[in-house]
Parts: sequence; structure tokens; C-alpha cells
Amino acid sequence: MPQILIIYTTLNGRTGEMVEPICEGIRDEGVEALTRSVEDVAWEDMRAADGIIVGNPTRFGGMDWQIKRLFDVTAFRDYPGPLSGKVGGAFGAGGRPGSGSELALMSTLHVLLNHGMVIQGNAHGAHYGPVYLRDTSADAIQDECRSWGRLWARLVKRLAQGHQ
Amino acid sequence: MPQILIIYTTLNGRTGEMVEPICEGIRDEGVEALTRSVEDVAWEDMRAADGIIVGNPTRFGGMDWQIKRLFDVTAFRDYPGPLSGKVGGAFGAGGRPGSGSELALMSTLHVLLNHGMVIQGNAHGAHYGPVYLRDTSADAIQDECRSWGRLWARLVKRLAQGHQ
Amino acid sequence: MPQILIIYTTLNGRTGEMVEPICEGIRDEGVEALTRSVEDVAWEDMRAADGIIVGNPTRFGGMDWQIKRLFDVTAFRDYPGPLSGKVGGAFGAGGRPGSGSELALMSTLHVLLNHGMVIQGNAHGAHYGPVYLRDTSADAIQDECRSWGRLWARLVKRLAQGHQ
Amino acid sequence: MPQILIIYTTLNGRTGEMVEPICEGIRDEGVEALTRSVEDVAWEDMRAADGIIVGNPTRFGGMDWQIKRLFDVTAFRDYPGPLSGKVGGAFGAGGRPGSGSELALMSTLHVLLNHGMVIQGNAHGAHYGPVYLRDTSADAIQDECRSWGRLWARLVKRLAQGHQ
Repeated sequence: MPQILIIYTTLNGRTGEMVEPICEGIRDEGVEALTRSVEDVAWEDMRAADGIIVGNPTRFGGMDWQIKRLFDVTAFRDYPGPLSGKVGGAFGAGGRPGSGSELALMSTLHVLLNHGMVIQGNAHGAHYGPVYLRDTSADAIQDECRSWGRLWARLVKRLAQGHQ
Repeated sequence: MPQILIIYTTLNGRTGEMVEPICEGIRDEGVEALTRSVEDVAWEDMRAADGIIVGNPTRFGGMDWQIKRLFDVTAFRDYPGPLSGKVGGAFGAGGRPGSGSELALMSTLHVLLNHGMVIQGNAHGAHYGPVYLRDTSADAIQDECRSWGRLWARLVKRLAQGHQ
Repeated sequence: MPQILIIYTTLNGRTGEMVEPICEGIRDEGVEALTRSVEDVAWEDMRAADGIIVGNPTRFGGMDWQIKRLFDVTAFRDYPGPLSGKVGGAFGAGGRPGSGSELALMSTLHVLLNHGMVIQGNAHGAHYGPVYLRDTSADAIQDECRSWGRLWARLVKRLAQGHQ
Repeated sequence: MPQILIIYTTLNGRTGEMVEPICEGIRDEGVEALTRSVEDVAWEDMRAADGIIVGNPTRFGGMDWQIKRLFDVTAFRDYPGPLSGKVGGAFGAGGRPGSGSELALMSTLHVLLNHGMVIQGNAHGAHYGPVYLRDTSADAIQDECRSWGRLWARLVKRLAQGHQ
């Protein structure tokens, strides 16, 4: 069974609330979902996964420094190579519209692409990954996260089959 | 009296609704505000202004093609030079959180910076420029636009004095 | 046989010089390569392709306005849907280091992701797509383009198999 | 005398080589230049400066994690406010064209803008800040850095006068 690893950190709890509905969407598609906080994730978890999804709060229009350290230091070890061809994705919480949440997503995607990962946009929802703003309803974001988790799981399955 | 030119285009009307409160904020500071739609703006308007603020709806995570053509073709004439040192800014409307409104703002700022313009962030509001999403209240965005207009007018005045 | 469509426009000829080696790389992998200039491409070409790769020169840190119009107007017709799940990619020429060529690539990738396309980074070469600067040797860029074309063709094949 | 603080970190030495010529350009304009490595910089240095210029190597298309921590943790203390209206800027070294050096610059500028800082583009040189790639000649980058330092010093002076 293919596996997606979710690595996350949270500031006020909202990024953390997105994790469970994303996992539900992934499992709906018969893909395993493994979650690790940025403090607990091991390099072996990252190497073993078929997909890596990263969640962080909006930190000045960029990814959280601890997530960045994970890629700059830990994932730099055997670079380039180990993460190439895996599926990547990003999600996160932010404050108001225009407060940098999309830029934070994109800064995460830049890192994943740099490691050779495969990412997908979403024409039917949040195009670059789910964003939970202060005024977003909790129900709406949970639906979005579940449906996004399913989309990512399907991409992992498409690519896994293509490898055989 | 220094002058700020606002160039805009609108898709469903919301970007257009942001123009008037921005002008009010600019005028509150004793700076002239001139508005032109992308179809009507002339190169001489752009050359004459002390600041140029550009508004466009979110178009696939980027600026509207007509605004892009204005810079690729019209403003390319005497490039580089004529817009250097002027104040620049961007605002716009979008759909849902994560639907590309911040990326559209940034793509506009990239063009303005490329022309040598001076831009400012905003620590106290929408950091990269006002964003009007579908669920943003009309009152909140009007307040934000007015206060942002004042900030941009003050920057124009600071730079104009510094030139004397 | 799966097919990749290359849509491009060129300013001084260097973006155009990248097209042929990319096609060679694609064909090396047994995938069909079809090329169209931005003036000639038809919406049916885009709908029919398994992958769409877009090349444009650096235009003020963004994509060329004609390419933008293609997506804002032509590809907007049946949006969202028709391009979802296809492979996307971007390449282009620029002037000096720091002259906006990467930002132009990313602005193109933002549009493709917004349409639901699948993109891949490259850990072993130009991470976001091939970039041909003024001082890049013609031999080096041709090698890079060929190898990048092969990578994209392999992604198209992985995804096509996964669909069966 | 107004003062610009340069905060930097370096990976293989090239980002570090850019610091001295930037300082020379700043001093040419009668502005004080103070340099601090990311390990040594103090929050009081940042509060006292009229401008803050940040240099980091390209780290997976983003800023170095230590620089990010400086803003996420140290500069977060009295946020928002203390850095608003100061001049900001970014420079850095990278590998090959398309290896993420521009994205790293922009991720730095996003943070500075988020703190309310004023930045300027450059129509006549590297538009978003100096970029030192592996194949860039050392002479060319030193000239670019000096001329860019002068430009930033002039912006600090324009804004300082406007404040009186």
C-alpha cells in the first residue's frame, strides 16, 4: 500500500486542525497516511514515503524556519536524489486575505520541486493547496482538506502504477 | 502636488470597487489621485505620475493579460529609465482563500520592481497590497483600501521631499 | 502514443533555440512532440495533449502577455476541467543572472497549476525548468533541454500508465 | 549619518564575497555600513538601522533557515512596527541559471515587505538584487554590488530627508 507522510508544525492550532481531514481523504483512497510533527519526523520516514505533504502556518510570507531547517539540513544529506519523483504538497493556515498564506505555500512548493518532487494544482479548489484563513468556516476547510487529500492520494496511485 | 496614477481592470466588479476608497486615502494626504482603466491609460500618464498603483482581478495566479501587455509593449518603449524611482503598488480581488490573489499581486510587483520602482510592505494590514476575496466584508475592504491609500501617499511625499 | 505539446514565443531567438532539443529528448522516450507558436496554437491542440510545455522569454519577471492571453481567454473557455491532470512544464531564456528568468518560469507554472496540471521539479538540473541566460553556452543548454525533455516524457508515461 | 545594516550567511563563500563591495557602494554615498553574520546580529542592530540588507546563498529556492529563524523568532518580538518604513534589500549567490537564486531573493523580500519595509527594484541591473552565479565573473559581480550599494544608500537618504 502506498504511503503519504504529512509533516507539519502549527502556531495557533489551525494548521494542526487541517491534518486529520487530509488524512481521512488519503485513507478514503486506500493510501496509508502517516503524520509527524516537524520535531519528530525522521529522515527515514521521508525516504520511505511515496508522497510528502508539508503544513505550516504563514510565517512572514514563507515557510516556518523549523520546516526550512528540516530541508536545509536533514534532507540535504543525500541530496540530490532520494526525494526525486515522489509526490509533494503543501497546506497551511493564515490570518487575513493577503497576509502571505499563498506565498508561504509557494515557498514550500519551491523546496519540494527543488528536491525533484511531483506536485499537482487543483482547478476545482484552492489551486496551490488548502488555505485556512481566520474567517474561513471550519466546515468548509474540513471538506476542502478531505477532498484535497483524496486528490493527492490518487496522484500517488497513478504514479505508483506507472512505475511497475 | 505629487500625483498617484491608479491603473486597473476588473472582471466581476470587485477590483473596480476598491479604486474609490484607495483614491480617498490618497487625497486625505494631500496627494492627487488619477484613475485610468487599462484600456484608457496613456504612456504620458505613466511618465508624469509620482506613483503608479495597479489593480487587477486574480487571473490564474497572475496579472491580467491586458495589464501585462501595457508593461510589455507600452512601458517597454523607453525602458529602462522612465519609471525608475517612482512608487509602485498593487491591489486586487480574488475568489476564495488560496485562489491565487497573492500570487497575482506579487506578479504585478515583480513587473514594477523590474522597472526600478519603489514599493512598501505593510506590517499592519494586508502585507503586499489589499486583497478583496468573495467572503471579505465590503466595509472591511473599504477601510483597508483607504488606509492603504494613505500609506502609499505618505511614501510618495517622503520620496518627493527627499528629491529636493 | 502519448503526446506533449510545446507552446512558445521568442523575443531574440534564444527561447526558440530551446524547442528542438526539448523535442529530441521527448522523442527519445517514445513520446510524440508537437510544437506550436503562441500565434498558431489552437485550443484543440491543448485539449488533445497529454502534456503542455510552455516557453517564453523573460518579460519583466513574468510570462509574455500573449501567452497570458492564451490562458486568460482561450483556455478559460471550459475552465475548470479540460487541462486537469495533464503534465505541465516551463522553460525560457533571459538576460543576466537575477534578471527575472526564474520568476518568469514560476509565473508560468502558477498558471499551469491553477489549471490543475501536474508538474515536476528536477533535483539534478535547473530545478524549475531550463533557463538560457546570455552567458550560458549553447552546448550546455542543448544538453540540459534534451535531458529535461526526457524527464518530462517519462512523467507523461508514468501518468498515462497509471490511468489504465 | 544614516546607517545600513548588512546581515548575511554564506555556504561556500560567494555570498560573503559580495558583502565588501556592497559596503563600498554604501560608503561612497556617505552612508554608514555595518555588517553582521546571522550568528552575531542583535535585535538592537536591526532596530537602530535605517536600512537592512540580507544576503544568503540559494537554499532550495528559499532563504537560509537561520536567516528565517532570525525573522520568525527575533524580529517577531515587537512585531508589527519596529522595522516599518526602513529600507530593505536582498542579495545572494547561487549555482547555475535556474537553480533558485531569484526565488531565494524573493523569499527574503517577502519577509522584509511583511515587516513593512520599503524596497526598490533596479531597471538597469539585476532587477531584484545582485545574484552571483557560479559562472559570473568576480569582477562583474563586484561592480554590480558596488553600484547596487550606492542605489540603496541613495534610497535611504531620500527617505531620511523626507522624514525631517
